[in-house]
Amino acid sequence: MNQDYIQTDEWSILEEGFDVNHVKASESLFSIGNGAMGQRANFEETYTGPTFQGSYIAGVYYPDKTRVGWWKNGYPEYFAKVLNAPNWIGIDVTVNGESLDLYTCKNVQNFHRELNMKEGFYLRSFEATLQNGSSVRVESTRILSLDLDELGVISYKVTPLNGSATITLSPYLDAGITNEDTNWDDAFWDTLEVKEAQEQGFIRSRTMKTDFNICTFMQSKLFLNDKAIEASKASEVTDTKIGFKYAIKVSEGETLTLHKFAGYVTDMNHKKSELISAAKKTLEKGVALGYSEIKKLQKQSWEKIWEMADITIEGDSKAQQGIRFNIFQLNQTYLGKDARLNIGPKGFTGEKYGGSTYWDTEAYCIPFYMATKDQEVARNLLVYRYNHLEKAIENAAKLGFNKGAALYPMVTMNGEESHNEWEITFEEIHRNGAIAYAIYNYIRYTGDTAYMHEKGLEVVIAIARFWKQRVTFSENKGKYMILGVTGPNEYENNVNNNWYTNYLAKWCLQYAAEQVVATERDAASDFDRILKKVKLTSEEVSEWKKVAANLYFPYSEAHNVYLQQDGFLDKELVPVSELDPSQRPINQKWSWDRILRSPYIKQADVLQGFYFFEDDFSTKAIERHFNFYEPFTVHESSLSPCVHSIQAAKLGRMDQAYNFYLQTSRLDLDDYNKEVEEGCHITSMAGTWMSIVEGFGGMRIKNNMLSFEPKIPKQWKSYSFKVNFRGRIVTVSVSQDGPSFTVCPGGAFQILVNGKEMEISNNQTQTA
Amino acid sequence: MNQDYIQTDEWSILEEGFDVNHVKASESLFSIGNGAMGQRANFEETYTGPTFQGSYIAGVYYPDKTRVGWWKNGYPEYFAKVLNAPNWIGIDVTVNGESLDLYTCKNVQNFHRELNMKEGFYLRSFEATLQNGSSVRVESTRILSLDLDELGVISYKVTPLNGSATITLSPYLDAGITNEDTNWDDAFWDTLEVKEAQEQGFIRSRTMKTDFNICTFMQSKLFLNDKAIEASKASEVTDTKIGFKYAIKVSEGETLTLHKFAGYVTDMNHKKSELISAAKKTLEKGVALGYSEIKKLQKQSWEKIWEMADITIEGDSKAQQGIRFNIFQLNQTYLGKDARLNIGPKGFTGEKYGGSTYWDTEAYCIPFYMATKDQEVARNLLVYRYNHLEKAIENAAKLGFNKGAALYPMVTMNGEESHNEWEITFEEIHRNGAIAYAIYNYIRYTGDTAYMHEKGLEVVIAIARFWKQRVTFSENKGKYMILGVTGPNEYENNVNNNWYTNYLAKWCLQYAAEQVVATERDAASDFDRILKKVKLTSEEVSEWKKVAANLYFPYSEAHNVYLQQDGFLDKELVPVSELDPSQRPINQKWSWDRILRSPYIKQADVLQGFYFFEDDFSTKAIERHFNFYEPFTVHESSLSPCVHSIQAAKLGRMDQAYNFYLQTSRLDLDDYNKEVEEGCHITSMAGTWMSIVEGFGGMRIKNNMLSFEPKIPKQWKSYSFKVNFRGRIVTVSVSQDGPSFTVCPGGAFQILVNGKEMEISNNQTQTA
Repeated sequence: MNQDYIQTDEWSILEEGFDVNHVKASESLFSIGNGAMGQRANFEETYTGPTFQGSYIAGVYYPDKTRVGWWKNGYPEYFAKVLNAPNWIGIDVTVNGESLDLYTCKNVQNFHRELNMKEGFYLRSFEATLQNGSSVRVESTRILSLDLDELGVISYKVTPLNGSATITLSPYLDAGITNEDTNWDDAFWDTLEVKEAQEQGFIRSRTMKTDFNICTFMQSKLFLNDKAIEASKASEVTDTKIGFKYAIKVSEGETLTLHKFAGYVTDMNHKKSELISAAKKTLEKGVALGYSEIKKLQKQSWEKIWEMADITIEGDSKAQQGIRFNIFQLNQTYLGKDARLNIGPKGFTGEKYGGSTYWDTEAYCIPFYMATKDQEVARNLLVYRYNHLEKAIENAAKLGFNKGAALYPMVTMNGEESHNEWEITFEEIHRNGAIAYAIYNYIRYTGDTAYMHEKGLEVVIAIARFWKQRVTFSENKGKYMILGVTGPNEYENNVNNNWYTNYLAKWCLQYAAEQVVATERDAASDFDRILKKVKLTSEEVSEWKKVAANLYFPYSEAHNVYLQQDGFLDKELVPVSELDPSQRPINQKWSWDRILRSPYIKQADVLQGFYFFEDDFSTKAIERHFNFYEPFTVHESSLSPCVHSIQAAKLGRMDQAYNFYLQTSRLDLDDYNKEVEEGCHITSMAGTWMSIVEGFGGMRIKNNMLSFEPKIPKQWKSYSFKVNFRGRIVTVSVSQDGPSFTVCPGGAFQILVNGKEMEISNNQTQTA
Repeated sequence: MNQDYIQTDEWSILEEGFDVNHVKASESLFSIGNGAMGQRANFEETYTGPTFQGSYIAGVYYPDKTRVGWWKNGYPEYFAKVLNAPNWIGIDVTVNGESLDLYTCKNVQNFHRELNMKEGFYLRSFEATLQNGSSVRVESTRILSLDLDELGVISYKVTPLNGSATITLSPYLDAGITNEDTNWDDAFWDTLEVKEAQEQGFIRSRTMKTDFNICTFMQSKLFLNDKAIEASKASEVTDTKIGFKYAIKVSEGETLTLHKFAGYVTDMNHKKSELISAAKKTLEKGVALGYSEIKKLQKQSWEKIWEMADITIEGDSKAQQGIRFNIFQLNQTYLGKDARLNIGPKGFTGEKYGGSTYWDTEAYCIPFYMATKDQEVARNLLVYRYNHLEKAIENAAKLGFNKGAALYPMVTMNGEESHNEWEITFEEIHRNGAIAYAIYNYIRYTGDTAYMHEKGLEVVIAIARFWKQRVTFSENKGKYMILGVTGPNEYENNVNNNWYTNYLAKWCLQYAAEQVVATERDAASDFDRILKKVKLTSEEVSEWKKVAANLYFPYSEAHNVYLQQDGFLDKELVPVSELDPSQRPINQKWSWDRILRSPYIKQADVLQGFYFFEDDFSTKAIERHFNFYEPFTVHESSLSPCVHSIQAAKLGRMDQAYNFYLQTSRLDLDDYNKEVEEGCHITSMAGTWMSIVEGFGGMRIKNNMLSFEPKIPKQWKSYSFKVNFRGRIVTVSVSQDGPSFTVCPGGAFQILVNGKEMEISNNQTQTA
């Protein structure tokens, strides 16, 4: 563990005491979001110390210029990045003429941060003595409303502690912001209008190139000792900023409170010409409700989320806090209302990875959303890719594929590829398989076969077409091969016959062939429509089968395992346990060539295949491969420990499973990788959820039924989780004495427990 | 052939007629240089059409910022690039008040360019009618002096053709310039001082970051009908520019001439504080000599160069022009006076490839300079690398090597790596072998074994240490392997056991072990000094031998050839001849992954090894490998055809050898790759020379003797070349009737001709 300043609490993230070295990490950890926007836990008042400012709007991105050493055909011309949006949280504060700035205060005491996950707010309080000797107590509460998802509210309280003081509060909007990670020092935003209208302020901005139009807005209310007051304001308006300054004389012990209602409206949801009027409507609603009512609604909305998504762990508060933090962040990031949105690896907590969509969504996030939300939410994640199918076909065409073959981008905002390293962009093609697998996984879980007929089959066909064209026939071996790929283990580039990729390709080809038959049989009119659209021939389907049947899989007789790729055994096979710890993490200590020629594995690769296709292999085979590959695995991707935890649990190695679980569940809270400053690892948080539900709980889908093989780490008294399976809410509780199950609503419900059928009744807890 | 506007002439490059579409290509082709600086053939007067401005100073570079998708450990933080230096050639011209600009003239006639290679000047003349109806004839001659290598001179003549005209001539210096290829829009130069002193102008500038200080200077003389005149000048001085304007009324048919003396002095050769006084001295010398005398001296200097370096070809004017163009450009680029300088792939003709040093120097250029110059010149190219040894050891250390192992940079200006694509920078490690091979090649040719003792052995040891650490022992095969490399064929990345790299590594290890023994035996005190410095142990040398003896070489029994790398036979082995021509060149038509998984070879790879180590293999084996690999070779590197031409000649396939020769000798003149606008391919020009001398002439070194196997393409009547071998100048003339040889100075001289010894006497031509 690298960091331990976060206080343990089952429902909150807590920080006590002010440490400038924790500011950027806490800005990530205490981030808030509501699916439509997000905000790092930056201070409202001026802070001149090291900080990483971040306000983000879901779906608003910028195509930053990229330059590489030598340009390669097919590279996109930009790297899409999530944009730091205009600042809506700012409130400048002065006390007796001096700006309040925790970095320059003489003294800061009782500094406290709380991310209240149960009720969905972020609170910060402190007592500060300024250079001029004035002392104040400040308490700030911030909410991004789940109900009015264009609105944020802040309650900012100042109490003079040593004599009366003239306090000025200047809530402002600032569009003069930049990204931390810009490739060039360009501005990304044009400010179109800065407008004052009585107590309201508006800034209309547009992103350059992408022309997203937004309006940032604010309105404030003042209270003295909780009683509304009127105060005259001085306006400060520049080309990119608007602020209203209120100056109030406050007696010692009295509390001046400012409620700031603010946020964004965008042209994704409103007409460009109506942004200011939309902002006014939102402000009207927000102000009418008032801060307290919004806070109450927020609590109710989070109650609904937790009702379904909570996982309880008894006997381990840190684990409890960790899993709730993960569930909370996932829900802050994506709520599934809008098929245009997706889940960036850092969510709304930072800029890194451009805020774009990766294969993380399909491989790691969908199971969480399927089980803890209505079916529609996971379906929207599939529809996101369906809506990008045309662009995926264009992307494949850029790389020389044809006849409707699709290659989904490795990194995307709008369906276009937006990453340009050839070994990733052009070669990490297994993502295409994960997108088909997610359709299979979704239908397996939800039973929503209509999705295949309506939308899924087109995607599955286009992906099969890609694999068919991407293989090479080796006369030498009389087999189809897939040359020049990067697998999930990105510590190998441009390898031949990555087993995971080959297996996934084979599966995609077979699955597509099967689904063509099934759709023709079960949904004739859909089938006709699709056939007409994609011009599929039976020869094409035969070709898919032929390739699938003759794909090459590198194998070692000596070790009785599939090889991660051709030539894997030529490496110096020294296990990680014998590696000098000073050399870890290798991605920070070693040059790339050294990493590539080493046997070390970044994240599950062959084992990822065994995770996806567990039913294709015997437990003995899983164990053999786990024993062979895990010792070479450095787990330097946040996505690695969860898959290993699930497999260790399946193999009954609960200590190992628990250790992997710890690595994933408090990755950010304990900052294992010393990088939480840059943001939290949102997508791997879904992996943490899987570690409990699929790992310890052993949940699988077998023959349209939920199946469990519950186990429990010896460190815990009990744990419980719920899953929504086809409209039935199943609660699984596991204690050291064994599991019990409840279902609601509706009648009798069959599940499998350790391979045996069991019927659980409505609202009756049943032990196994 | 893609371009045919260059007129054929045996001693000149000629262009007739003005075509705006040829301007940028001609700016490259008509470039001039004197080893210390170079100048693209930009117009002196204003030109508002498309142009690529370039003035270059040898050794002056800038570390431009680089950004890549994901940063990798060991990447340099910059990409060194040759800098476009302040403009010294500019002369603004007006005719009756209108600016002379060939892009806007009503009419341009008799436009003529001549690059006179025999005498070393560039001439341009034309008749132009301006928008205002005035017609003038202009003739401009430009020289970069070989004798005063900080000086350039221009003779610029204007003659009114339709009535008298007021002509203004404004010679200027302009430091407000940028690079075409800047990664960012930064300025690279700071202007420190713009100074006028009577008829002289000076601009002192410094490069940012690298702090190269230079002074650009000028002084002009005016003549009317070749008679010196005085004219009052108007000065125009800005922050980055200085110009002197002379206005003269000139009658129809009279000629106004301006001689501009200008150039650069730099702090590589003068104290920073004395740049202006150094410039004044240079101007003084130049003005005292005067334009005509400088032109005469230039002719004499080029006569000396040609005396030794010329190759004559009878019966093929295009071939004659082509080879002279190559020899001329090589001599413009590098004259071997200064061991701090080297040969950039574009010389002084463009910016591409950053003007830096690549392995081209060792693999392609050294033979040319060894044979056509004094031994000191090639030795300076070796010393360049010796002087960078410490930085090469640091570079290797950055990549995790230790104990004095050196990895020379792939691309460098000052010994530091300045390229950052992992597959090149970290993996194209064969360059290290070429640097050792060049030492071997130099000593084999010159007999200068003292170089090994003085400097070479340290380099050879450090390179051997690198290879020893870079190999991997494969338990699987019981052999040492080299994993994860890029060979000379850059259309494969991160492959295992590239045969060329492995063979070169084995050779380096053996050579180092041998040279340790030989140096101890032949130069004991040098050996002691080196031993003390590099702390070599006999165990280390034993390790080198052990690795060399047990290196793995991929081999195909079926084809009886060494494989380019592991897995080569798994590719779809469709020869280039069956490739749709619309897909060529593949590096412009295909995405990188497609290129990588194809069998296509960019340039000689296995065959490069057979070229370097020809004596290790039977002619049958060379033929077998040539037959196997050449059909997959797309020759998309300018360095490819020459090696193939040499090998085809060796195999007696003169038609094929001649075709490859054509591809290399007029690559730029005929612009095969449609890119001559960006500059000429200087380093491959040395390969063209090799195609004649080593290919057709069959020159080799055998047992300290020159050996020839002369052949002649049927298209030629005869050809001849000279080589300087250990102080003896051997002239080789080959006609359809056979070869003849002359030697001077000195006594009897033994050579091998077609394997038989032959004695040639002083100044006696002897036929074989």
